[in-house]
Amino acid sequence: MLIYRPPVDDTAFVLFDVFNADAQWARMSPFAELDKELATAVLGEAGKLAEGVAPLYQSSDVEKPRWKDGAVSAPPGFKAAFADLAGGGWFGVSGNPEHGGQGLPKMLTVLLEEMFWAANTNLYLYGALTTGAALCLDAHADEEIKRRYLPPLYEGRWTGAMALTESHAGTDLGLIRTRARPTANGAYALTGTKIFITSGEHDLAENIVHLVLAKLPDAPSGNRGISLFLAPKFLPDGTRNSFASGSIEHKMGIRGSATSVINYDGATGYLIGQPNQGLACMFTMMNHARLSVGIQGLGLTELAYQNAAAYARERLQGRAPAGPKNAAGSADSILVHADVRRMLLTQRAFAEGGRAFGAYVGLHIDLAEHAPDAAERQAAQRRVDLLTPVAKAFLTDRGMECAVLAQQIYGGHGYIVEHGMEQIVRDVRITQIYEGANGIQALDFTARKVLRDGGLALGDLLEEIRADVGTDEFAAPLAAAVDAVEASARRLIAGSADDPDLPGAASTDFLELTGLATFAWLWAKMARAASSPSAASSPSAASSPSAAGDGPKRELARFFYAKLLPKTLALEQTIAAGSASVMALQEDAF
Amino acid sequence: MLIYRPPVDDTAFVLFDVFNADAQWARMSPFAELDKELATAVLGEAGKLAEGVAPLYQSSDVEKPRWKDGAVSAPPGFKAAFADLAGGGWFGVSGNPEHGGQGLPKMLTVLLEEMFWAANTNLYLYGALTTGAALCLDAHADEEIKRRYLPPLYEGRWTGAMALTESHAGTDLGLIRTRARPTANGAYALTGTKIFITSGEHDLAENIVHLVLAKLPDAPSGNRGISLFLAPKFLPDGTRNSFASGSIEHKMGIRGSATSVINYDGATGYLIGQPNQGLACMFTMMNHARLSVGIQGLGLTELAYQNAAAYARERLQGRAPAGPKNAAGSADSILVHADVRRMLLTQRAFAEGGRAFGAYVGLHIDLAEHAPDAAERQAAQRRVDLLTPVAKAFLTDRGMECAVLAQQIYGGHGYIVEHGMEQIVRDVRITQIYEGANGIQALDFTARKVLRDGGLALGDLLEEIRADVGTDEFAAPLAAAVDAVEASARRLIAGSADDPDLPGAASTDFLELTGLATFAWLWAKMARAASSPSAASSPSAASSPSAAGDGPKRELARFFYAKLLPKTLALEQTIAAGSASVMALQEDAF
Repeated sequence: MLIYRPPVDDTAFVLFDVFNADAQWARMSPFAELDKELATAVLGEAGKLAEGVAPLYQSSDVEKPRWKDGAVSAPPGFKAAFADLAGGGWFGVSGNPEHGGQGLPKMLTVLLEEMFWAANTNLYLYGALTTGAALCLDAHADEEIKRRYLPPLYEGRWTGAMALTESHAGTDLGLIRTRARPTANGAYALTGTKIFITSGEHDLAENIVHLVLAKLPDAPSGNRGISLFLAPKFLPDGTRNSFASGSIEHKMGIRGSATSVINYDGATGYLIGQPNQGLACMFTMMNHARLSVGIQGLGLTELAYQNAAAYARERLQGRAPAGPKNAAGSADSILVHADVRRMLLTQRAFAEGGRAFGAYVGLHIDLAEHAPDAAERQAAQRRVDLLTPVAKAFLTDRGMECAVLAQQIYGGHGYIVEHGMEQIVRDVRITQIYEGANGIQALDFTARKVLRDGGLALGDLLEEIRADVGTDEFAAPLAAAVDAVEASARRLIAGSADDPDLPGAASTDFLELTGLATFAWLWAKMARAASSPSAASSPSAASSPSAAGDGPKRELARFFYAKLLPKTLALEQTIAAGSASVMALQEDAF
Repeated sequence: MLIYRPPVDDTAFVLFDVFNADAQWARMSPFAELDKELATAVLGEAGKLAEGVAPLYQSSDVEKPRWKDGAVSAPPGFKAAFADLAGGGWFGVSGNPEHGGQGLPKMLTVLLEEMFWAANTNLYLYGALTTGAALCLDAHADEEIKRRYLPPLYEGRWTGAMALTESHAGTDLGLIRTRARPTANGAYALTGTKIFITSGEHDLAENIVHLVLAKLPDAPSGNRGISLFLAPKFLPDGTRNSFASGSIEHKMGIRGSATSVINYDGATGYLIGQPNQGLACMFTMMNHARLSVGIQGLGLTELAYQNAAAYARERLQGRAPAGPKNAAGSADSILVHADVRRMLLTQRAFAEGGRAFGAYVGLHIDLAEHAPDAAERQAAQRRVDLLTPVAKAFLTDRGMECAVLAQQIYGGHGYIVEHGMEQIVRDVRITQIYEGANGIQALDFTARKVLRDGGLALGDLLEEIRADVGTDEFAAPLAAAVDAVEASARRLIAGSADDPDLPGAASTDFLELTGLATFAWLWAKMARAASSPSAASSPSAASSPSAAGDGPKRELARFFYAKLLPKTLALEQTIAAGSASVMALQEDAF
């Protein structure tokens, strides 16, 4: 049976001790009223709710959603649990206050999301696309649609879905075949089949708002001929729209979540944004969802770690190399073994580092909209654009790595369904795939976010890190990691003009290198924040009886620098190795 | 639907072009009659059979084994398929000819095993412990038991099982509670409960031979008080022995394989070897099984690669960065994308490198027994002891890594059950856990196999590699990798005297470093062998139209050196970072 304890204290530490959230909020007028006390209360409430819905996570893997005649019923217990989430207003926390949203800063809400993803990923998936759909409508829809759709989405009475993929068109959306035919009333009739539609059909909400990519009759081919449509399950007059779930998928994991094939059979849709500009509109939702999926990876990392640590504390097996530590017991706890600690500390370092990273990206989303100065807003937006693919891919790759390590701590018991650890592995695996596979994130990061502006946005981040390198034990290796990122970027910029395969050949490694260097910075910041006398929010700092003035944060930072950061050495070299060895093999030799 | 094509040609290339198997066999009297033609025929027959049983792999994941009243029935179709395997003599290929075994060299049979593991891991699991049980009995049982048990085990009419683990005793077998009480007839009555017993109960064989660890009444505590017993499901007089399956486990994967809880209720057992020496006897079986599990990881790597490559060739999505390569089609195959190639080449490099590694270890198992010279036999045994944990952990860690990469090639389709890729990931995951979790392998390698003899056995391996470094493009990086292993070993040897936590803190990284360096050597050897004019066995070399004289093997070797070997840089540094950062965190802070 899995346990989950919301990391409220560590979240508060990240917000207030590491990033001075209250000072940041004071600078942004919509958040001026928000203080540490209120934010901490919100965290506490979210944590309570998350803990409450956690027990249904494992049961929903077995008592799966059911499909019958085009309708899907969610797993047992989900109705009441979802009503708690929706009723608590948790889908409207970052929504536009003009339409009923609570307008809380993303820096805070991204860490609320972590708790919901961690506690019950299957449940949260029924509502997870709701906030992104609302964001997309808020940005691109007309006022009437906003007035009609945003309030029930924020209330979670209605949920959102994102209909992009077709069986032959995943990464390459230019190939989609779903058609939109104008109808007499100014609306459109959508016809086509979409697959992999998370929560495209279920019985937890009164209505489901599909955002659908389709092609107008006169559309140009490829990505420039895609338009975005809103197609609600129930039309404004209450009639059922003509689309339905054709089936639900049998999946490796997230089995409590219903993933539908959706058949649109002349379904009524409303154009959102301009004709043929649908992909750009959809990116508002996709970028939101990409960060959210990264946070899902983070949440599952935390869940995996908590359980593995609890198991390791209790499991007695073998003796410490230097002699018994629990001489009265039949054996020592496996925490005496360095290799077990290595696995646990890796998870913890990526979970806590990921929390700081999520807050950092969230802060810049807030700054991009609300910073007092236009230049600061633009700079923040560049930072968000740069780091969104890193958040998606780096956090989910680490999620998979950490879930496997956590399962490994359990030995054979980790492979048995009842313990739940194998479910975390199966579930976190999807985060590397959906919302743009991680290879796509890496290419987006490398080609679009770094090469296209000649490394400017990346340079700004590296400059911020360099200005904050400090003078402590982490300064030299942090500076070296930043240098490695910069040298690699220069090499890629210089080499890509003559070698169009270079970005793709280096992209996955370059994203990971950047992620590691950024985490190294965040770990140095956290160690510093935890050592400072004002770090009252840190339970870690408070509870540590170890080396004077140093808490677990500094010890974890040291672990990160000693055992995880050195991978940058390998990555810098594999990036420098270029594309030749990757492209040489003839296609028919595969 | 998964495909599987046995890599018969590449296997022949490894045996004959890389390792001159025929010349080696000519030096060992039991294999003097075996030539390339006969061995290739055996490979071809095994391949045909493997291909024949492959289609039941996916179905057995769904139509799982059933438990009823202590009896277990295997998945539909397995009876006939298993009869084909057994009837073909495939469980006796490496058996002792004095008792009906075929006595083929391990160098060959280890690569037959690869095919069976790859084609249908679930099916092969019903017989996989049979050869190990036979090996153990051949080494430690008396003549009467050998005469009675070995022939039906070699024929696969009877199968073997290994009963070690109890719920509170996995890694630490000294804690087991199963008791053995002497009975009047010289046998023993075994009482206790064992868990995780692969094929401990099923309906594919006439009898099941359990090798059980238990404690005699007067046994010392811990590992020195464990004895080994043989307990057959049916006793020599035909009566049913008093043990039964209490239940079968619900597992993440290998769901077609029945993993039982076995309750021994005064079951009749026969002592094998000396009292209290059971663990040493069992290690004969365990070492055999550890290599076999490594080969299972290799087989699943090959299976994953073959399917991912086939999918990538067919999947049209996007365009090559430099412009369309398949202008007539709706899109290019995803093989034009460097990141897709990186993922595929990683799998291929580890699969083909793993095949060479398996053959190399197999050769030394043969030499340890049959080399004409005693010193050579001893040196070979040291090599086997050294590399068995590397084979187990490195091949299975790479198996997991590669299965995930192969699944990733499929995008969202890889997450859907029907495609089978997610099953490979779930199934290969167990190989990192069972037969001694990979952390245990790393500690065995580092502490027992390297530190205990002061690095002698490792030094012999490094010397062999250095003598074979050659003068080509791989010479310098290969020498550097060998230097890194040696420097790390020296550092660990020097540091461990004062720091008992050091071996555990570095062990996983040190095993991986050694694995990478060894694979680098094997890749250099393979590239050389494929370039030589006599390399007629290599289909790769023959079919490649690329750079003059260089085939895919050289291109794959270049990929390995460019993109995979550089991880050694990180590993050398993390090993050098020692144990302090791993041990610092207080137990109650986890």
